Amino acid sequence: MDEKLKEACGVIGIYSGAEDPSLGRTIYYGLYALQHRGQESAGIAVSSGSGIDYHKDLGLVSEIFSEKVLDRLSGRIGIGHVRYSTTGFNNLSNAQPLVVRYKNGYLAVAHNGNLVNAHELRYELEESGAVFQTTADSEIIAFLIAREASNDVVEAIKGCVNKIKGAYSLVMMTEESLIGVRDPNGFRPLALGKYNGSYVLASESCAFDTLGVEFVRDVEPGEIVVIDRSGVKSIRYRCGGKRSLCIFEFVYFARPDSTVDGINVYRARLESGRNLAKEHPADADLVVGVPDSGTVAAMGYSAQSGIPFGFGLIKNRYIGRTFIQPSQKLRKLGVMLKLNALKAEVKGKRLVLVDDSIVRGTTSSQIIRMLKEAGAKEVHVRISSPPVTHSCYFGIDTSSRKELIAASYGVEEIRKYIGADSLGFLSLEGLIKSTGCGREKFCTACFSGEYPLKVPGEGKKYLFEKC
Amino acid sequence: MDEKLKEACGVIGIYSGAEDPSLGRTIYYGLYALQHRGQESAGIAVSSGSGIDYHKDLGLVSEIFSEKVLDRLSGRIGIGHVRYSTTGFNNLSNAQPLVVRYKNGYLAVAHNGNLVNAHELRYELEESGAVFQTTADSEIIAFLIAREASNDVVEAIKGCVNKIKGAYSLVMMTEESLIGVRDPNGFRPLALGKYNGSYVLASESCAFDTLGVEFVRDVEPGEIVVIDRSGVKSIRYRCGGKRSLCIFEFVYFARPDSTVDGINVYRARLESGRNLAKEHPADADLVVGVPDSGTVAAMGYSAQSGIPFGFGLIKNRYIGRTFIQPSQKLRKLGVMLKLNALKAEVKGKRLVLVDDSIVRGTTSSQIIRMLKEAGAKEVHVRISSPPVTHSCYFGIDTSSRKELIAASYGVEEIRKYIGADSLGFLSLEGLIKSTGCGREKFCTACFSGEYPLKVPGEGKKYLFEKC
Amino acid sequence: MDEKLKEACGVIGIYSGAEDPSLGRTIYYGLYALQHRGQESAGIAVSSGSGIDYHKDLGLVSEIFSEKVLDRLSGRIGIGHVRYSTTGFNNLSNAQPLVVRYKNGYLAVAHNGNLVNAHELRYELEESGAVFQTTADSEIIAFLIAREASNDVVEAIKGCVNKIKGAYSLVMMTEESLIGVRDPNGFRPLALGKYNGSYVLASESCAFDTLGVEFVRDVEPGEIVVIDRSGVKSIRYRCGGKRSLCIFEFVYFARPDSTVDGINVYRARLESGRNLAKEHPADADLVVGVPDSGTVAAMGYSAQSGIPFGFGLIKNRYIGRTFIQPSQKLRKLGVMLKLNALKAEVKGKRLVLVDDSIVRGTTSSQIIRMLKEAGAKEVHVRISSPPVTHSCYFGIDTSSRKELIAASYGVEEIRKYIGADSLGFLSLEGLIKSTGCGREKFCTACFSGEYPLKVPGEGKKYLFEKC
Amino acid sequence: MDEKLKEACGVIGIYSGAEDPSLGRTIYYGLYALQHRGQESAGIAVSSGSGIDYHKDLGLVSEIFSEKVLDRLSGRIGIGHVRYSTTGFNNLSNAQPLVVRYKNGYLAVAHNGNLVNAHELRYELEESGAVFQTTADSEIIAFLIAREASNDVVEAIKGCVNKIKGAYSLVMMTEESLIGVRDPNGFRPLALGKYNGSYVLASESCAFDTLGVEFVRDVEPGEIVVIDRSGVKSIRYRCGGKRSLCIFEFVYFARPDSTVDGINVYRARLESGRNLAKEHPADADLVVGVPDSGTVAAMGYSAQSGIPFGFGLIKNRYIGRTFIQPSQKLRKLGVMLKLNALKAEVKGKRLVLVDDSIVRGTTSSQIIRMLKEAGAKEVHVRISSPPVTHSCYFGIDTSSRKELIAASYGVEEIRKYIGADSLGFLSLEGLIKSTGCGREKFCTACFSGEYPLKVPGEGKKYLFEKC
Repeated sequence: MDEKLKEACGVIGIYSGAEDPSLGRTIYYGLYALQHRGQESAGIAVSSGSGIDYHKDLGLVSEIFSEKVLDRLSGRIGIGHVRYSTTGFNNLSNAQPLVVRYKNGYLAVAHNGNLVNAHELRYELEESGAVFQTTADSEIIAFLIAREASNDVVEAIKGCVNKIKGAYSLVMMTEESLIGVRDPNGFRPLALGKYNGSYVLASESCAFDTLGVEFVRDVEPGEIVVIDRSGVKSIRYRCGGKRSLCIFEFVYFARPDSTVDGINVYRARLESGRNLAKEHPADADLVVGVPDSGTVAAMGYSAQSGIPFGFGLIKNRYIGRTFIQPSQKLRKLGVMLKLNALKAEVKGKRLVLVDDSIVRGTTSSQIIRMLKEAGAKEVHVRISSPPVTHSCYFGIDTSSRKELIAASYGVEEIRKYIGADSLGFLSLEGLIKSTGCGREKFCTACFSGEYPLKVPGEGKKYLFEKC
Repeated sequence: MDEKLKEACGVIGIYSGAEDPSLGRTIYYGLYALQHRGQESAGIAVSSGSGIDYHKDLGLVSEIFSEKVLDRLSGRIGIGHVRYSTTGFNNLSNAQPLVVRYKNGYLAVAHNGNLVNAHELRYELEESGAVFQTTADSEIIAFLIAREASNDVVEAIKGCVNKIKGAYSLVMMTEESLIGVRDPNGFRPLALGKYNGSYVLASESCAFDTLGVEFVRDVEPGEIVVIDRSGVKSIRYRCGGKRSLCIFEFVYFARPDSTVDGINVYRARLESGRNLAKEHPADADLVVGVPDSGTVAAMGYSAQSGIPFGFGLIKNRYIGRTFIQPSQKLRKLGVMLKLNALKAEVKGKRLVLVDDSIVRGTTSSQIIRMLKEAGAKEVHVRISSPPVTHSCYFGIDTSSRKELIAASYGVEEIRKYIGADSLGFLSLEGLIKSTGCGREKFCTACFSGEYPLKVPGEGKKYLFEKC
Repeated sequence: MDEKLKEACGVIGIYSGAEDPSLGRTIYYGLYALQHRGQESAGIAVSSGSGIDYHKDLGLVSEIFSEKVLDRLSGRIGIGHVRYSTTGFNNLSNAQPLVVRYKNGYLAVAHNGNLVNAHELRYELEESGAVFQTTADSEIIAFLIAREASNDVVEAIKGCVNKIKGAYSLVMMTEESLIGVRDPNGFRPLALGKYNGSYVLASESCAFDTLGVEFVRDVEPGEIVVIDRSGVKSIRYRCGGKRSLCIFEFVYFARPDSTVDGINVYRARLESGRNLAKEHPADADLVVGVPDSGTVAAMGYSAQSGIPFGFGLIKNRYIGRTFIQPSQKLRKLGVMLKLNALKAEVKGKRLVLVDDSIVRGTTSSQIIRMLKEAGAKEVHVRISSPPVTHSCYFGIDTSSRKELIAASYGVEEIRKYIGADSLGFLSLEGLIKSTGCGREKFCTACFSGEYPLKVPGEGKKYLFEKC
Repeated sequence: MDEKLKEACGVIGIYSGAEDPSLGRTIYYGLYALQHRGQESAGIAVSSGSGIDYHKDLGLVSEIFSEKVLDRLSGRIGIGHVRYSTTGFNNLSNAQPLVVRYKNGYLAVAHNGNLVNAHELRYELEESGAVFQTTADSEIIAFLIAREASNDVVEAIKGCVNKIKGAYSLVMMTEESLIGVRDPNGFRPLALGKYNGSYVLASESCAFDTLGVEFVRDVEPGEIVVIDRSGVKSIRYRCGGKRSLCIFEFVYFARPDSTVDGINVYRARLESGRNLAKEHPADADLVVGVPDSGTVAAMGYSAQSGIPFGFGLIKNRYIGRTFIQPSQKLRKLGVMLKLNALKAEVKGKRLVLVDDSIVRGTTSSQIIRMLKEAGAKEVHVRISSPPVTHSCYFGIDTSSRKELIAASYGVEEIRKYIGADSLGFLSLEGLIKSTGCGREKFCTACFSGEYPLKVPGEGKKYLFEKC
């Protein structure tokens, strides 16, 4: 039913100078703030200097951790992970952080991204005797670190990042240090914060706000940050290259209260609505956003166009994991379980309906039908991003290309399919402009097909789990 | 942490001419649409003509009912209930519907409201040998019906409603009929709908939309609606008296996509924001609503005042029942777990912060502090209802009067307590005007202390569970 | 698969002079010792003098009560109940103790037995306006007590016991007293114990041993025991009549380490095996008991006959409630999941197989087949009680008569059906003799059809839940 | 409270020529029959020829697998594992089977035993870049197989078994074959069976009986059995050496209805009781076994001595995993929760109390006290095995030596500690004689300190999990 693209993961790490009985809890609240980046599994690993304890399971952060478990997870250093995983068997073994023991002691790895050469690396590692217990990229990363000759973990990490290609924002820990790594393209966000002499790494700055942590700076693409007893050390192993920050973070994934690489997500989203109004004006009475993803852009559209903004759709927020989907006979209920049209607001009106993206188009068509049944005279759909035409190999689950409606159909065909009176997508230029930055800063592959790195074929993409 | 007034209950009933294997599921989706009216327990009772089967438990609708249970709950007639309950032991025994067997067969009762003479009725019933197994008003109602001499259930219900006083929107069922009752004052809503020859009673029209049911009309205050093999029969046992529809349904309880007694909730809420702007204008840069309860009024304020509307607060929607509250040491996180200020939007601005009501004032003060820490220059608080100064005896949990900040303090004192730069409450006249109806239509007791019925003392109120 | 007759219930009550934080726990361990009397639901109710708190649920004692719940259940007086319930809907509402509020305050009732005039009493009560929320006899009992004119609970109980007929061992509590009642026939056991100034009532003395409680005496048939601040008071309301202790308690229900009305269960069971050997000798090599119910009688048979006793069957004790029964295709596994023949012991031997009773005969036939497949040359079945030919109306679930193989078939037909080489049942005289008491002491209705009280027809028996 | 030595694991594997939708269920029932070998975690892995699916979790077999999971686990080849695990964090990651992917495809490993050179092997593997995710020996085994040059899994297994030392009965599977391996000493049992063209490997023959499988033979020490499309192939890689079958399997671990390496467990246990009576006669009235472990030997003692056998102790079988242990104040209840003395049987008698072993001595002392309080005049303790004086390094959890009472104290001291009137342990010779085999066949290290292989120091033993 839900046809949104899926973000793969969120990561967090804390280096607390001294033993902290609340360490597990603090990471728990941090993960809770990052829950939008992955709702299928979560985990926390901690160390007090000797060994690494951890707990991970399938489910939401609030379902996985009990008081008893959080009490156990005290320590000086800890990392956490939330994950959206593709369905299939053995999901639990792919939950992160991955905690391993190798020649230099214990290591825990939390990964957000997707390696494009995972297939080759697995093959090489297997050929030399490696044994894989999961299908997660983080296992490849741990294996490569373990196989480096150096006994120095930072040297070993340097060796590893010379081999892996693709998107990776990593938060790792040994029994003595917290380490953050961002790939040279900087596909996925990673930020550094501090409070009370502690240091925090997190996927998004919104986690800092929740924890009362002061934002210090973004980790740079191609940078390794090492935090230990001697403080924060930065190793810029391949900085200064081509940047490829995922532009979809601003369209949908990141929380509006986060600021990523200097770009405020809320402002970018509001601006995308403004630009959408410029590119695709409409003769209408009311601007309505699809809650929650289209709301901010809808406000921007309204502000630019002068057409009033209103709530035309009400979202039921009580759906939980165990919610029972309607049987065939009741299937017509469909989207209405989650959304209801506000008849009083939409009746007799010409609407601009703003959403952030269209993936398969089925949800859009249901919403439009519902609005028309509620009395809307016209529904002009405006999408605050370009058509998604290509698969992502850098940490987003776009499903296969054939499920992307825009990969096979043009705008007019999509309009007909969803039953809109008109349909307009924001241009890629318009989207880029909304961020206030230049095109060279972003990966726009899902819209443009211009992959910043060589990617494997469609088929191979689904052999392994990304995150 | 959450200081909202609590609605007590939501009810639904379906009369499906023929045996319907999906009856339980249909009620399930209806309850899901009414989940905002009660999140602590839920239940469904059904009959195929011989006996009444039921399932009820503590928790959200989506947590309580499994596929297996819903498959079991097929039938021709069914009712459902969601409930907010006060804490205390033995909650489960108070979950509804209450299903009983008495001289005329089986009866199931689902109640939304609160009897003001519960204490006296219980005493009388006990004196004549009655044995209570719960503390719910619905048990009193069932007992009174059972003690009527008549073997005709409708006659018995008439006898019962002549004895009970207070607020009651009842949905009841026997093995052969579905019955709806609304008290003569019409404190709580109750509406009638139909589809495919089936009839539906529900607390709010939003449940009809979810189920694809056509709204027929509101049940009238003082009306008994009986639906059985012979169709819909209406008994107006005490219609035409003083109406006392709870005005707080429009301030906070009812879903914006519902229409209650002809008043659209969304429109009333939007209008209350407009009237608030007229009564308490502010010299500011941005209007921000406290999500979700203040958002619609904030839009109205913005529309009236011309001050732009913006999202200044982001709400984290992943908090579940098992969420672990921060320990003392991490308590300062407080509200920030659920809400985060949008720095990019509020920094340097003078804000109008709109919320629907203030109960204890603690949440407001935390939100204001958060906004100021995020850089807001000024925070002008505007409340889209008058100060809550009196306890409710008609189905809302207002806690005791001493917990109501406005019962003890004036506006200026509250302003200081919450740390606002200015504070304005909508007047009762303004609120009433927002509904488009006259004062005579409403119960305004929580704001005015004018109780439409004689109420028991504060103490007695807490002896029994209301719903 | 399991074709044993089902005991209906076990009860316990504790009067602890002073507030006891461990009261709930002590009752928990007592119920655990009585778990063999009912495994489908359990409950504990306690009072510290004001109101009665309780917790009850479906499942085993060890599954139902958490540390948190037991910590809550502190108090001065408490009662507990374990129950075997017939399947059907709404089992939970029939779980006991039943806790009610009536004109004289709170009352909790735990019942072991079955009223034979339940149908008439319910009709009368309903006619006078009573509303039933369960189908348990304990509800009738509570209603009758509540309707007595007297404000003195003991007087009211006296009034009640003059009306109810059948089997009832009751443990009840008010906020101030613990009360035990045993029906005038004494169908079901009930014993009184004491420790440290506390008094305990329990279905069987084995619960006293577990709790370190000293056995004082059995409650007499027709006696009411009241324990309160002033000590233990005995009211013999109809003592001295015809005794009808259920003889099946000695055949199967009671734990071997209990002593009921002066008869030690282990000794009676051992003696029944001896008498069985006298009545039905066999030319065999080994005596084997069906674990666990036939083991003690098998030892008696061996001792009397001189044929060695051996373990020919091994029982797997890890089957739990959630155990998945074999699907049709794997059904042939049948009994073997729970039992396995000890080939090394039975191969080539002529066996005497001793069990306590035969109900439907299916289990016996599977066991015999298994023993023969394991190499047993002959299997001579000896049953340590007479054929079960009649339904029980006094607290045992014997199913309907048509499910009792011995109600329709003679010994030789049963022998053929189960595939035994010979079959012998202990005579009723032999069974009675095993107890060391005379026939006049027992109810033997399930074997003899001689009901000590007038019983309702087969049909009516299943209208209501017994316990 | 429970002071028994803990068996580490049970294994099973099935090769079913054709795809079998019931494969998971069949393994489930097989694991259920082996549940006595490990109650803390269980798992099943299956393959239909492409990849290996699995499910494993903490808990009893009946708790871990739902209908839904078993339906998923269809296939042609499958293995299962039950495990007793030492406490500590991350138990779940040590649950088996371990399923991995390596250069030659998928491999699943289920292990019963304990490697004595695990420490050295881990060090070597880590030095060459291996990354460990568990602390189980099965991971070492999988790694060694993966590092062999050969692409033939059997060749690789041969290479692996040349490196590992210690106790290992392995059941492994690839996508195409089922493989059983038994270490050259044959410490742990492993048997081969067949039915309907399918082959089964299992720790004990009792699993064959449950599944209706025909016993073929024991896997020989030093033998690899490979079952695939071409049938059963046997590779005797180091057969014919010193045998060291664990003699404790006959004392306590194995189920009495199993036959291990030609020795029937029930007969050996019965014989040990006879020999015990010869070595340590007693002047007594009744022989009582501690249920269930001492019962069979008690019967042997009775048969040899002529002293009657009786049940002096009743065991409560309803204790489950969630059972709440008595708090300090109620601790005196101790053993009595599980066991109760049969006063009627033991009062005034001189008892021989037979148990299989004494580990810490605390349980024995509680039982003796209980029997004396029940009236036993004398309690003569007879143990059907020698004093346990040495730690086991071959798959049994004996705790550390200092917890073994017999490692520090002589027989007379132990007698005093437990409060027995006399105490006799069966001699090692007597125990060996009971099996009908010679000393050269067994490992007797826990009694004699004669380790068949060089073992690591006490300290190292606890670094890794055995199974």
